[in-house]
Amino acid sequence: MTFIGERVPRKEDSRLLRGHGRFADDQDRPGQLWVRVVRSPIAHGRIRSVATATASEVDGVVRVVTAADLPDRRIPVRLKVQGINLDDHLQPVLATDTVRYVGEPVAVVVAEDPYVAEDAAELVELDIDELPVVVETFQGTVAADFRLGYGDVEQAFVDAAHIVEMEFDVGRHSAVPMEPRALLVDVDPGSGALQIHGMTKVPVFNRDVLATMLGVDENLIHVHAIDAGGGFGVRGEFYPEDFLVPWLARELNRPVKWVEDRAEHLVAVNHSRQQHHTIAAAFDKNGVLLAMRDDVLHDNGAYARTHGIIVPELTLAMLPGPYRVPAFAGRIRVMLTNKTPCGTYRAPGRFEGTAVREQLLDVAADKLGIDRVELRRKNLLDARELPHTREMSTLGTDVVLDSGDYVGLLDKAMAEADRLGYRAELASLRAQGRTAGLGVAVFLEKSGLGPQETADVMVGTSGAVRVHSGGTSLGQGIETVLAQITADALDVDPAVVTVVNGDTALQPFGAGSWASRSTVVGGSAVHKAALAVRERAIQMASRMLEVSEDDLETRCGSIGVRGAPGSSVTLGEVAKACRPGSPHLLPDEPAGLAARRRFEVEHMTYPYGVHVALVDVDRGTGLVQVPRYLVAYEIGRAINPTLVEGQLVGGVAQGIGGALLEEFRYDEAGQPQAVTFMDYLLPTAAELPKVDVLVTEDAPAPGNPLGVKGAGEGGLTAAGAAIAGAVRDALDLPGPVRRLPLTAERVRGLTDEGTR
Amino acid sequence: MTFIGERVPRKEDSRLLRGHGRFADDQDRPGQLWVRVVRSPIAHGRIRSVATATASEVDGVVRVVTAADLPDRRIPVRLKVQGINLDDHLQPVLATDTVRYVGEPVAVVVAEDPYVAEDAAELVELDIDELPVVVETFQGTVAADFRLGYGDVEQAFVDAAHIVEMEFDVGRHSAVPMEPRALLVDVDPGSGALQIHGMTKVPVFNRDVLATMLGVDENLIHVHAIDAGGGFGVRGEFYPEDFLVPWLARELNRPVKWVEDRAEHLVAVNHSRQQHHTIAAAFDKNGVLLAMRDDVLHDNGAYARTHGIIVPELTLAMLPGPYRVPAFAGRIRVMLTNKTPCGTYRAPGRFEGTAVREQLLDVAADKLGIDRVELRRKNLLDARELPHTREMSTLGTDVVLDSGDYVGLLDKAMAEADRLGYRAELASLRAQGRTAGLGVAVFLEKSGLGPQETADVMVGTSGAVRVHSGGTSLGQGIETVLAQITADALDVDPAVVTVVNGDTALQPFGAGSWASRSTVVGGSAVHKAALAVRERAIQMASRMLEVSEDDLETRCGSIGVRGAPGSSVTLGEVAKACRPGSPHLLPDEPAGLAARRRFEVEHMTYPYGVHVALVDVDRGTGLVQVPRYLVAYEIGRAINPTLVEGQLVGGVAQGIGGALLEEFRYDEAGQPQAVTFMDYLLPTAAELPKVDVLVTEDAPAPGNPLGVKGAGEGGLTAAGAAIAGAVRDALDLPGPVRRLPLTAERVRGLTDEGTR
Repeated sequence: MTFIGERVPRKEDSRLLRGHGRFADDQDRPGQLWVRVVRSPIAHGRIRSVATATASEVDGVVRVVTAADLPDRRIPVRLKVQGINLDDHLQPVLATDTVRYVGEPVAVVVAEDPYVAEDAAELVELDIDELPVVVETFQGTVAADFRLGYGDVEQAFVDAAHIVEMEFDVGRHSAVPMEPRALLVDVDPGSGALQIHGMTKVPVFNRDVLATMLGVDENLIHVHAIDAGGGFGVRGEFYPEDFLVPWLARELNRPVKWVEDRAEHLVAVNHSRQQHHTIAAAFDKNGVLLAMRDDVLHDNGAYARTHGIIVPELTLAMLPGPYRVPAFAGRIRVMLTNKTPCGTYRAPGRFEGTAVREQLLDVAADKLGIDRVELRRKNLLDARELPHTREMSTLGTDVVLDSGDYVGLLDKAMAEADRLGYRAELASLRAQGRTAGLGVAVFLEKSGLGPQETADVMVGTSGAVRVHSGGTSLGQGIETVLAQITADALDVDPAVVTVVNGDTALQPFGAGSWASRSTVVGGSAVHKAALAVRERAIQMASRMLEVSEDDLETRCGSIGVRGAPGSSVTLGEVAKACRPGSPHLLPDEPAGLAARRRFEVEHMTYPYGVHVALVDVDRGTGLVQVPRYLVAYEIGRAINPTLVEGQLVGGVAQGIGGALLEEFRYDEAGQPQAVTFMDYLLPTAAELPKVDVLVTEDAPAPGNPLGVKGAGEGGLTAAGAAIAGAVRDALDLPGPVRRLPLTAERVRGLTDEGTR
Repeated sequence: MTFIGERVPRKEDSRLLRGHGRFADDQDRPGQLWVRVVRSPIAHGRIRSVATATASEVDGVVRVVTAADLPDRRIPVRLKVQGINLDDHLQPVLATDTVRYVGEPVAVVVAEDPYVAEDAAELVELDIDELPVVVETFQGTVAADFRLGYGDVEQAFVDAAHIVEMEFDVGRHSAVPMEPRALLVDVDPGSGALQIHGMTKVPVFNRDVLATMLGVDENLIHVHAIDAGGGFGVRGEFYPEDFLVPWLARELNRPVKWVEDRAEHLVAVNHSRQQHHTIAAAFDKNGVLLAMRDDVLHDNGAYARTHGIIVPELTLAMLPGPYRVPAFAGRIRVMLTNKTPCGTYRAPGRFEGTAVREQLLDVAADKLGIDRVELRRKNLLDARELPHTREMSTLGTDVVLDSGDYVGLLDKAMAEADRLGYRAELASLRAQGRTAGLGVAVFLEKSGLGPQETADVMVGTSGAVRVHSGGTSLGQGIETVLAQITADALDVDPAVVTVVNGDTALQPFGAGSWASRSTVVGGSAVHKAALAVRERAIQMASRMLEVSEDDLETRCGSIGVRGAPGSSVTLGEVAKACRPGSPHLLPDEPAGLAARRRFEVEHMTYPYGVHVALVDVDRGTGLVQVPRYLVAYEIGRAINPTLVEGQLVGGVAQGIGGALLEEFRYDEAGQPQAVTFMDYLLPTAAELPKVDVLVTEDAPAPGNPLGVKGAGEGGLTAAGAAIAGAVRDALDLPGPVRRLPLTAERVRGLTDEGTR
């Protein structure tokens, strides 16, 4: 039987629910030292001195390190874009002569105890001459300025019957995973080899970066698999601490531990999203899109971090979305300001671009007098137009929209919303005199980034199956998904499959869990490896049972002779027959019932969806409530529908946060205004509706053997768009809402503009 | 250049000499519990009760476990001999209803602290009814009775011109490695997976045994590579603690540690050697051997442990040694007595058999009036007679003496002894009235047991090379030897090679370090794997440099174009080109510059040697001193002569211990008389001569690509024989010395028998 598509209970839950998860902070080693990072209290300044003597004298302090003690190292860009050189803007591990944002690491205190380290860190005396602070994006330094697009946009705008133009801001916010970062690094004093717990997302890449920065061979570093309390793009990138803690362990020849607190987290990990768009669309007289153009200022904070300019690039490359846009001109300027540097946050570039594009379409629909769903239906690419190649590339891959029926899904989503009574409820609310609105947003996602993932599948002599994959277990359920894929291909019970993700010794060719790639690319690698093991098992069983391979079949954990129910060998027995010294193993055959396979892919796959949001605005307070929310998402094939639904609901929660609540604001001096959860407002259960989910599997991905399209981000992608549209609808604005998040304060400012 | 044969400094020494070795007792985990084993204080008895209540109430005691708490498990035989069933004699993990030797584990106390555990263990109340105790070997129970041999021995004895017969006892002693045993077992409470530090010698085998006993898949258990302070056969076999400590870790879901103390060690680890021989040889009138027969009682202590009856089997199979013995009849009875169970100790069966055979030849030489060297020369197999097949098998392999010139080596050894003035010194001592003697013993060793060893060789992107081998690092220098073999095959500097031995996750097909197999079988596997990496590197370099493979050559860490010194790529660059996503890597090629290879071998190889010992006996005290000692050893090829010499010198030290000092004696009640180093006498530097070593490489082993024969045991094999011969010579005994060790007390008893 197949286990793909089954609602198999999460394998992770057995340990997580019993408190047996192994998170980075659960790791300890006898004799470990504790690190506390001393961070800049000012946003921009020249360092005159960093005085460490007082801190060094505190009892229990082992070492205080400043940039002067370190080799000169900057953190490299992970996702390079050809032709864009960011070397001048890379972040140093510790600030040398200049600090550029509040929270920038300046020194490190190492002590026998975390409390001593924290207390002593406050005794490190920073003497910094303040420099002028840039907080406004448009006043920043241009780190990169590039364009993506195709077609004759200028002519299209000349020929247009209608031109709709607007400005739109997406606010600075980011992921705040439940578990802040943590690292435990153990060192073998004899060899200098490092055992690292706490690197998630891209452990092999981080291992390689660290090896290069330390000047050692990558095989001297072993990053262990751990649990992680969420990733969402920010957790697991290579940050200054990812160099500092291992470097200190080697320097001091002792285990070193560091745990980030929440206040640090909010200024230290990548921020995201902050962009100012000036977008315009040209339509013919029937409302058919002729062209779009967008001029974006992207606020990247103080440095280019590991993501380089990939968020800006994705913003432009994905901006046309699922629509037939004959000509597109995008320009983006990456601006450096004195704020925390930025990177990806779940649905990077798409959350921003979708919000802007869909708001523009809403404004255009009103302006052209066309129903907004009808306008979209008119301009969505038709199923027969796919695959559709856009003359752009992102993440090093050409944009080729692979398969789907965008109009069909829009219709299904609207029908589902009607079936669930969304429009009826809207009417009812309005009848009650409430300021209610419905938002509809269509979006295109991308997932399954290559170039590869590698997986090992092996069977033990008890018949237990192990999978060593390159993904990481961030809470998303990837162990369950890969176990189902293995069980399906190998024909075993998922219960006997154990999946280990992100251990660099077990899987040195892993590419990590990001970009919604784990199921698509990682899953396909596991699928290939499991099929190879199956094939090998049949070959060996044929020798053991002395029958032709063609007469053999799998029987959930066994290989049996067709038509002879009593004649079979278990996979465990086959594994025994594969051991060295076995009479069934030929001299030059590799031992073990195991296979390593690599799945390589050139193009991404493009899932797509529709969000429908019903909002209820309190005109007095400006508070926006979201009583109903629907996500329709086409993902090709759901390995485990329960996990897909969970991903989508979680994404909506984050999307509502970004659309209504979450924002990293700064004052004029560059002081962050949101350094606790009292200021950085997360949606709670009270702010969230029961999310309706419609997962469709109508358009399997042609580019991978499972047909999967990745489901990790679509709950978030159009949340800003749908809520902006709903608020605009509620307030009956003629123009755009102009800015996310739609905090109560901003909504109060908008209520005067509406006609309702 | 080749690095084979070079005196490369030991790679292990950098960490060991700086105190950075990682021995089992160096491992700790926060929250670990400590185990203390409660051992039987009496040699034989029926257990009426094991009362644990008092011990359990001690503050800090977490659990007290008796056999009743455990699954019923007995430790299986590792080296099975077909047709011999020892199931009734296997040792249980904890004694159930009967104790059979002093030191047998009866209960286990687990506590938060090792001192609490030890104190509480004394509060476990054992109520045991004493049963009759068997201490004398001949009174024991026969666990196995078998014969090995060939030819018509009876007729040969009928036809003989001379028959020489004698009885001979080899005393019970064993290895006492500097580091007693220790285990740290960490458990992942989520999965039950075990991380084990402390299993040496055969980690993969022990992992598999443990998995079977625990009823889990072997891949759930990871045995880590550690340093070990000596092995010598006893350390690293599967003992009761190897089940108890992991079982407790899983049961209590906490890390558990156990460290053996010396008093425990002396009663707990395998004893060895104790045999009573009744041996006879038949000669023709010219002193040509016609046949030998030997009837052996082998004292195996209370149980059959992991070695089963392999020591008895080896005793018989190797007894004819390097001699032309036309007919041989061996019988051995394996006797169970109420003493510590036995296993292998370096040169198992050969130390015993060589001592007995060579003493017989010395007695025969005198009786036949032939010089003892001449008698040996006459009866040694001639070089032209090799390979020589004996119609016997041992360790599952047929006995085929592969290559050599036994007579030639005897002549070389005697010439070397003369050159070094042995005979002159003998004459000088005698001229001074001292009771001096010279012993000469010729011996055959065996090494390189199959069926296989597996090795991984991989190159990192810095050009560093890693080897994952199945051996274990017991102090013998195997890391250095395998690094040299790798460096030679791959053409890199041994300094860039790191060897990891005995990690079951890194090398799941390792067979371990024992039976002098690591260099022969493990080294050959490494050699094959390194050659495969070299071949792959040339293939990849050919793509990178766009030249034919035939035009490429290795250049110590690089691949270069012949005749173009400037045109080359480093192995690190080649490794980069082998990463997934590299343009040089073809779609279906495995990534990584790495290879796993298995070396399989059906037959052992047979090194051989000569020991010459000069002794000086104090007739008053019986004290035997050894002023001069020569080992001549043919080992085919020395990878590192310094290490070979070190092995031989260390072996002589242990051999002198077994020949003169070390003995586990028991009183009539089965109480061990040697439970500290005050009673179990080890040779110290004062007792040891400077050992002269003559390593020859005249007869490379035909059965492996390196030609190596294994050099781990030959310093010990004939030490009992040579010293027995020398003492006999010194005392001018007409008959044999009858018994080893030749303690001062026994020598005093012999002085009256001599004629000198």
